[in-house]
This record gives sequence, structure tokens and C-alpha cells, in this order.
Amino acid sequence: MSVLNVQLLLTGNELMSGDVIDSNSAMTAQYLKNVGIEVQRKVTVADDMKALVDEIQLMSQQTDILIINGGLGPTVDDMTAQALALAANKPIERHPQAMQHLQTWCKQRNHPLSEPNKKQADLPQGCEIIANSIGSAVGFKLVLNNCEIYCTPGVPPELKLMLNDEIIPRLAKKIPQHLKTTVKRMQVFGIGESTLQQLINDNYPDWPTDVELGFRAAMPLIEVKLTSRSAAATQQANNWKNKLKQLLGDHIIGDDSAKLNKTVIDLLQHKKQSITLAESCTGGLIASQLTQVAGASQVFEAGFVTYSNKMKQQLLAVNEKTLTEHGAVSKQTVLAMAQGALKISQADYVIAVSGIAGPDGGSQEKPVGMVWIAWGDSRSINTCCLYLPGNRFFFQQYVAAASLDLIRRMLINSLNRPYYLKERQFSIKS
Amino acid sequence: MSVLNVQLLLTGNELMSGDVIDSNSAMTAQYLKNVGIEVQRKVTVADDMKALVDEIQLMSQQTDILIINGGLGPTVDDMTAQALALAANKPIERHPQAMQHLQTWCKQRNHPLSEPNKKQADLPQGCEIIANSIGSAVGFKLVLNNCEIYCTPGVPPELKLMLNDEIIPRLAKKIPQHLKTTVKRMQVFGIGESTLQQLINDNYPDWPTDVELGFRAAMPLIEVKLTSRSAAATQQANNWKNKLKQLLGDHIIGDDSAKLNKTVIDLLQHKKQSITLAESCTGGLIASQLTQVAGASQVFEAGFVTYSNKMKQQLLAVNEKTLTEHGAVSKQTVLAMAQGALKISQADYVIAVSGIAGPDGGSQEKPVGMVWIAWGDSRSINTCCLYLPGNRFFFQQYVAAASLDLIRRMLINSLNRPYYLKERQFSIKS
Repeated sequence: MSVLNVQLLLTGNELMSGDVIDSNSAMTAQYLKNVGIEVQRKVTVADDMKALVDEIQLMSQQTDILIINGGLGPTVDDMTAQALALAANKPIERHPQAMQHLQTWCKQRNHPLSEPNKKQADLPQGCEIIANSIGSAVGFKLVLNNCEIYCTPGVPPELKLMLNDEIIPRLAKKIPQHLKTTVKRMQVFGIGESTLQQLINDNYPDWPTDVELGFRAAMPLIEVKLTSRSAAATQQANNWKNKLKQLLGDHIIGDDSAKLNKTVIDLLQHKKQSITLAESCTGGLIASQLTQVAGASQVFEAGFVTYSNKMKQQLLAVNEKTLTEHGAVSKQTVLAMAQGALKISQADYVIAVSGIAGPDGGSQEKPVGMVWIAWGDSRSINTCCLYLPGNRFFFQQYVAAASLDLIRRMLINSLNRPYYLKERQFSIKS
Repeated sequence: MSVLNVQLLLTGNELMSGDVIDSNSAMTAQYLKNVGIEVQRKVTVADDMKALVDEIQLMSQQTDILIINGGLGPTVDDMTAQALALAANKPIERHPQAMQHLQTWCKQRNHPLSEPNKKQADLPQGCEIIANSIGSAVGFKLVLNNCEIYCTPGVPPELKLMLNDEIIPRLAKKIPQHLKTTVKRMQVFGIGESTLQQLINDNYPDWPTDVELGFRAAMPLIEVKLTSRSAAATQQANNWKNKLKQLLGDHIIGDDSAKLNKTVIDLLQHKKQSITLAESCTGGLIASQLTQVAGASQVFEAGFVTYSNKMKQQLLAVNEKTLTEHGAVSKQTVLAMAQGALKISQADYVIAVSGIAGPDGGSQEKPVGMVWIAWGDSRSINTCCLYLPGNRFFFQQYVAAASLDLIRRMLINSLNRPYYLKERQFSIKS
């Protein structure tokens, strides 16, 4: 049981109707857990004034901290400020700081400050503003029945920033040092969740009970978490994390929320080398993932999305004969795509992929879910053939992840063979 | 307000900690909505006996129907049956029908009937069994304080079957035909949420109260929803949806959950025409969005991700002079990129983008968030310059959406000018 009682109130017709799956409360709980605070209870109600007012009054009597999420927008169904004012029996006032934020926000966007927008500055008297650095809706805090109530926006990136910058640091200060929960996380790829669990069971039957081990499938990565709830356990957790690092080796992408795209960009920047891509079945997804990372331009000059055979020939100089004899989804074609992309772009490294994303286009010999991946540099290019049945989305995501992982392993001269090269290897079915 | 008050109680430590995102409650709400029942309130608590008992007692006094989800498994943290028995002040008894189900279930699987399994037959006295055709945990129903309480399993496919086969048909019978809720949705882009609200306020001050209008920012699209709760209101809602369609015209992407990428692919397929892309700042995101759609290969042969100036010259034949004189982020450069991509790919339509995604690389004249977009065909290519400050993720997503929207408007010969061309237009700041 946490030292601080924290409850969440989520509002929105779309949450009640099931049109939207609530991920904001999970994100909030995870942020809170990182500083040792557990959420006690969550309540979700529609955009209904009476329901909101009743719930705010009730919850404020039961908890130390209430975080309200949603209902800060400019439209009529956004009613959090009004509901909080009614619950606290305060008038609504146009808040000068919120107005200033709105004016700046609109000016930066050449956007007229409309009446519905101004509504976002109409807040309960006496509330404190919580800055929103990317959205129009400011957050705000009010104390009612000795409960600190934080009102936050429903747009996930805005909520995330507000939690990170303002709310979590404030709440963390309320937790005594010796009661803090510590969570150590790392990201793993190239090993299945059950294999991972078995490996740990086999190697560490003496895993300590006060270092809680958890896994989370953060498709396609797996997050490994070590949770400790005392200073002594935290010290132990450090040792056990190091043991895990030895056990898992290069299957570890990195600590905390490390990602494959950022890791590959960092490795290339460090080596001052560059990469190019020749994508068929992923259709630009790998390029898009790499260029999501700020600074990608230092290591990435060009990518080729060659969906048709004609464009594989024209842009990447793949021989017509190679395509006719072996087909677009073949070892010979991905090799030629990789060689072509390397030559044209003059990059140091290359990834080329060609496969059958589906749902159509499969055959018995080359079924939906089959993919050839080529990766390497000007001296040597490797290839593999994987079988990733499922749906188009899963297929594209996994091909992109495996491709980036294979280049990552090459960049760190890894000798660890990723499990998918065995477990997901394609073998022709009879 | 629905004729029947239905509330959900969700239980599970993994839901409170945020390790698992709850999708069961959304599924339940959607099934209920299909028969005209709205969920009034959802409460989530951890696997904690006192919290569960308190919540069941309280909720049973407030609602007609309570659906409890989770906590039916064989382990110690599964405590729904026990909590319900305590709340209702009934003893726990081994239920013969539940035991029989367990015996059959185990026998079919060559699975010994273990003591933890038998716990799943220990249920509150007087409860009615609800069959589970695929899992070991039966559901059960008990009436407390005139509230019908349904206990359901947390495993999504088991919950789904139980809702479909048993619970929804029972509840549907309680709703008179003329009171069923109907929701009509459409997706809109090219108009801000506050502008949208203002436009509707100005044009339809007489909007009927029984056709509830809702908006949801499904970044970058906006979803517009019309909810009606009676046969008469549903008929009205049809008329008002048609009025909205006239008012919003080509800002409407489509009905239900229409998407920009699918809409563009469909339009091109219908015309039997093709598209190519020359992407700088979006780094393959537009290509990736188009190729997420099954069947994209019929209208998309190739895309160019030209991040560096060298590659803009080499792959798209942009003049070195154009780049030196005007820079990579300029009208002249995107025009040349578009012309080059069209010529090389022989596609019918083209999108080219070049901008400053940030966080670095901006200047006073060309700040982070500025982007040039070119779109068109071999006869005419249009350009615009937008200013989309925020973060890199938002910038790339919005540029991709605006680009696809501009081509969509061209494909339908739209005369409606999207609002972002005005409100988000870039103007050099002094």
C-alpha cells in the first residue's frame, strides 16, 4: 500500500462508449509507479455534468490526490473546469495566465483566438495553472476537501509532458526516501518471452523475492522490469540487473525505454557512418522509423521504396533476369536490391527487404508472411528468410524491427545469434 | 440517459499498475451499445478484498446492472467470488454445475483437476451459472440490492463469448425497441476543432437537443459523432447528418472510421491511376502510411526518401543551382523534387515535401516547423508553405496528413479550400 492515496477520474463519452480504449490511465499509473506511488482506484464517467460533479465531490473526500483526465478542450462536451467549479462551489473566471497562453499559442499558429478557444481560459476561481508546452489547454490544480485535484488534458502527448514536467515531480516530493519504489527497466529483442522466462528460471533458481521480476510485451520489444520496494532491495536489484545483462548479452537493446531506431542511429553517429534502405514489403516503414529520430540526417541520406519489379530494376539496377528467374521475394533479389542501394547512395551500411505482407499475393511456395532480409556493408551482405504470419501490421512491424536489430548486431560485432533467426526461420512447407 | 443503468467494475493489479491496458471494458461497452445500452460508469480497483467488497456494495445500490470483470481464475489473487459472497453476506459453496463444467473441461484436455482449479467452483450461495464454452472459469449471476450482478472472466475471448451468448441477449430484452441508441460517425480533416464548433454554432443555432453532437480529436483527424436515443431522434439525426455533410463538404474524409491513406488508395484504384512520393522531412512516413493499406501495390510503385541535398540531386535530378540559390526547404526545391519523382516513376500523381522537423536545423528565416509541400500531376503541380511548430512527431504526422489530404482533394476535384492552407500558412516573422 502506497503512503499516498492517489485516484484517477477519467472523463469522456468516447471512453464510456468503448470507441476509444483508455491508455492515459495506464501511462499515468506507470509514471506514478516509477516514483513509488500506486494508484488506488480509477473511475470513468461520461461527459455528463451531474455525474462529474458528484464523482469529484465523492472522490475528493476519499483520497489525497485526484488526477482528472480529459474534458479540457474548447467544445461543449468539454466540461471539467465547470464541473470542478460546481463541485468546489467556486465561480468560473477568465484566468489571465491561461488567456496569455492561448494568445501566444494562437499567434504562433496564425490562428484566430475564437470564442470556443477562450472557453479554455475559463477556470475555477483560485486554481493554479499547470503549463502545457505543446497544446492549447492548460492544466490546473485546485484543493477541495484537503484533496489536491489536478486537471489534465486528454491528448496523450500533452498529458505525458504535463506529468513529466509538473505533476510527477510535485508528487514525488511527498514520498519519504525510504519508501520509494525503484523500477529498473531494460528493453530486449531477439528472444521470446517464454524462452526468456525459462532462461532466467534455469540460470537463477535463487532469484530473490524482494526484487520483483516482470516482463511486458512492448511489441516487438520485450521490457524487463526489476521492482524493489526498499533501499536494501534496490541495492540487490542492481546486482541482479548486472547478472541479467550478462545472461542476455546482446539481446539487450538498452536501458529504460531504449528503442531500436534510436540505438541504430546512435551507433552510426558514433562511427560516423551512414545507412541506406531498399524497402519493398515494409513500404518506407524502416526509413520512417529511422527519421523519427532527431539527428537522423547525419547518418541517413536516402532510402528507396521500390514496390514494383519495374522500380526495383530502374532505381536499384536489379537485373530483369534475377526477377524473372527467382521472383521479387528471393535471396537473389534482396541481395541485388542491397547492392544497388549501397552503390547508388554511397552509404556504408544497407538493409533491403522483400516479402509478402498480405492479405493477398501469397502462394504455397511463397506464403503470406514470408520475407527475405539482406543487411551488411560493401564488404559483405548477409541474408535470411523469416516466416512471420499474422496480419499485415504485425508483419511490417516485425520485419522493420528484425532488420534494424540485425544491423545493430553487426554494428556492435555481436556474436550472439538472435533467436528469431532460428525460431522464425522460413522452411518450405510440403 | 439510457433506460437501464449499467455500470462496470474492473479488477486486477495489472490494470491499476498500468502494466496492462484495459480493452475489456471498451469491448463490453461496444456490445452493449449495439443493443442500445450505454454504460454509465466504470470503476477499476486492484485485487484487494476490502476494496472489492466496498465497491460491490456501493455500486449495487446505485445501478440496475453491474458487470464485474476479472478475478475468476484459480490463483490467490482471484477473489471476485469471495468478495461478492462477503458483499451479499452469503456463504461460499461448491457449485455442482460449475464442478461438472470443470471436470468436463479438464477431461477434454487430459488435464488433472487440481485443487486451485476446484476453487473456480466455489461460488456464492444461490448464484446462477453463466456458461463459459472455452475456458475453465464459469461466469455467475447474483442479485443484490435489486441489482443484477454478472461476474465475467478477464480473458478477452472468454468474455467476448459470454457477452455474445448470454449476457447481451438477456440485457437486450430489457430495452424497449423505441429507446435504442444510434451513433453516426464521420471523420473530418482540414478544419480545426474550435473552428468546426463555431461553424456549426453559426449555421445551426437550432441544433436539436436530442441529437447529441460530439467531437473527438483523433489526431490528425477529427471524429464527429451524432448520438440519438429514440427512433424519432434517429430519424432526425439522419437529416442533421446530411446538413452537416453539406456544411462541411470536402472536409469530410468519410463515414465511420475512414482514414486518409485508405481513402487516397481507394480513389486512385477507382481511377486506375498511380502515385509517387518524394519525401525529405517525413522520411518515408507517407510511403509507409500508404503501404499499410492492403492493395497499395496497385497504385504505388515507388517512393523516394531523399534526406540529403546530394540525394535530391542524384535521385530526383534537382539542380544544384536550385538548392544553392533557394535552399532545400523552398518552393523551387519541392517543385523540382515533385517533377523529378513524376518523371522517373512515370506515376500519375506526386507528393513532395521538404521542411524542418527539428528540434535542430531551424533559422529565423526558416524556423523549425516550416514545410513546403508540392502536390499534383504532370499537367500542374501546386505548392504551399505551412508552419507546424510543436514537436518532431506532431510535425511529421501533420505533414503526412496534409499531403494526403491535398492529393485527396485534387482527386475529387474539390473546390473547398482546407482551413490549414490559411490558418497554418507560413508567414515570415520579423
